[in-house]
Amino acid sequence: MGIRIGIAGYGNLGRGVECAVQKNPDMELVALFTRRDPKSVYTKTNVPVYSVSQAPDFQNQIDVLIICGGSANDLPEQTPYFAQYFNVIDSFDTHAKIPEHFERVDGVCKANQHVGIISVGWDPGLFSLNRMFGQAVLPEGKDYTFWGKGVSQGHSDAIRRIPGVLDARQYTIPVEEALSRVRAGENPELTTRQKHTRECFVVAEAGADLNTIETAIKTMPNYFADYDTTVHFISQEELDRDHKGIPHGGMVFRSGVTGMAGAEHRHIIEYRLQLDSNPEFTSSVLTCYARAAYRLSKDGQCGCMTVLDIPPVLLHPESPAELRKKLL
Amino acid sequence: MGIRIGIAGYGNLGRGVECAVQKNPDMELVALFTRRDPKSVYTKTNVPVYSVSQAPDFQNQIDVLIICGGSANDLPEQTPYFAQYFNVIDSFDTHAKIPEHFERVDGVCKANQHVGIISVGWDPGLFSLNRMFGQAVLPEGKDYTFWGKGVSQGHSDAIRRIPGVLDARQYTIPVEEALSRVRAGENPELTTRQKHTRECFVVAEAGADLNTIETAIKTMPNYFADYDTTVHFISQEELDRDHKGIPHGGMVFRSGVTGMAGAEHRHIIEYRLQLDSNPEFTSSVLTCYARAAYRLSKDGQCGCMTVLDIPPVLLHPESPAELRKKLL
Repeated sequence: MGIRIGIAGYGNLGRGVECAVQKNPDMELVALFTRRDPKSVYTKTNVPVYSVSQAPDFQNQIDVLIICGGSANDLPEQTPYFAQYFNVIDSFDTHAKIPEHFERVDGVCKANQHVGIISVGWDPGLFSLNRMFGQAVLPEGKDYTFWGKGVSQGHSDAIRRIPGVLDARQYTIPVEEALSRVRAGENPELTTRQKHTRECFVVAEAGADLNTIETAIKTMPNYFADYDTTVHFISQEELDRDHKGIPHGGMVFRSGVTGMAGAEHRHIIEYRLQLDSNPEFTSSVLTCYARAAYRLSKDGQCGCMTVLDIPPVLLHPESPAELRKKLL
Repeated sequence: MGIRIGIAGYGNLGRGVECAVQKNPDMELVALFTRRDPKSVYTKTNVPVYSVSQAPDFQNQIDVLIICGGSANDLPEQTPYFAQYFNVIDSFDTHAKIPEHFERVDGVCKANQHVGIISVGWDPGLFSLNRMFGQAVLPEGKDYTFWGKGVSQGHSDAIRRIPGVLDARQYTIPVEEALSRVRAGENPELTTRQKHTRECFVVAEAGADLNTIETAIKTMPNYFADYDTTVHFISQEELDRDHKGIPHGGMVFRSGVTGMAGAEHRHIIEYRLQLDSNPEFTSSVLTCYARAAYRLSKDGQCGCMTVLDIPPVLLHPESPAELRKKLL
């Protein structure tokens, strides 16, 4: 029998985990928990669906619960709650509140002898790991993070709230010139505007004043005012046809020097993701960290951890000896 | 007092560690051990130099010894020897012999309560880690590793052994078309010839038959015969002026899919290094893993490990709580 996985929450992320478990032959999906009426949920794989209230009954049937709620409202409550009963993984990504979330999950995990791995995904997650490795290897240097080309749900939502807008999709795009300068080792100081542009595809109500909408977008504080923003008005059909996907990605750079003062050498580390589906990729990261949680728990460990704490070997299905032979 | 570092061996790698320790304020370099006459060794930082035979006397003055010998002849003997007395780090890179080296170092480390981290650097090392993360996150996919543009010492040496050759420098260069196809998600099958080209700068003896030398290079089995190779004959002055550096680098890709069959999404992870000095960068990796060895040893652990086993957080000078706040 494989590692028994449960999923809490069945949005994009939950569906992604459902798929990811299928690609990991040492795992099996045991149950899906939802706040909706379980009978109303149609899954891709016929995994049994239960109400979240039934989750505690599954304590002995699930090795790791992957919590697929949102960071704003769900995870701050759900992760500590479920950590009473299960080893848990979440993708909590409200950067400023991670320390506080960590402490709460740590307390519950330790009291119940469970492992919790929080803030798993690509940023926070794989990008955090690369910032860590880059700084450790090149203590004298500069970090750069770029996002995109990809869809920002937050920015798309912000546009949809403007009067006269029916639907919208916003892409965050790294500026090629900035990337070239970083890759060339120039270590530039870059403003917000120099790093990313924003491109918006907007469906307006019939008769709406397009200039007013465009101005409302381009001058919106925090979201758009500090960026060069392009607005395209298109039909709902075009939006549905050409902008349905949820691609994303980005790059983490560490640009630093080694050697004695006066005879230094420059090095550039670049970590780049090109993702056709942001939620499915995030789910795949969550799923391989479930393997680590399972192994750590079997090993008698407990408490809250992040990707920074996890020995990489625990993520891979093969044995350490096999991996030394094949990957080193 | 910081982490007390010793260096065994003072070639390019040893000099690189000497510099790297200076960039890590929580470390101090205590001693350098050499097989040469210590009086004949001039260091960059005035670190005291001793004969390797004196190393055992320093057992209580050194927290981690970074062994900077060669993989072919030095490390198979040196790492197990020094592991009797110290926590040790090496850069053993003879891929096929890593399991055997691991077992030997593990035995000595466990018998003497020391931590040994072997095969540290970028390949094996950071590239191995990226192959591991890539496979774990995207179980359905393909790995690609490209090297260069960079100097291959082994290939340069092979050219120098040809009669009539005085000096030579060989660059390994990834083929742009192959990189583009991988980055575009084509998952191509690539032959050796399609992945890399080789460019050689050769200084010939006066009167040597250049055609004979060029043919000898291009047809050399294992080293050149399977590649498209370009040979340039230049003067020793030109070689010294334009090809003194030891740059290297490369890329590790994981190209894979997620989602249900028939509705899959493609993802490409790229890890890229551009290194102006191969030995100094490798030394910087060795040095930050010394921090991990120190912390693991303080924590009561012992035995042989590789980069795959080390929790990333142990590499960074700052505290886990601080890192969660800043890097996640």
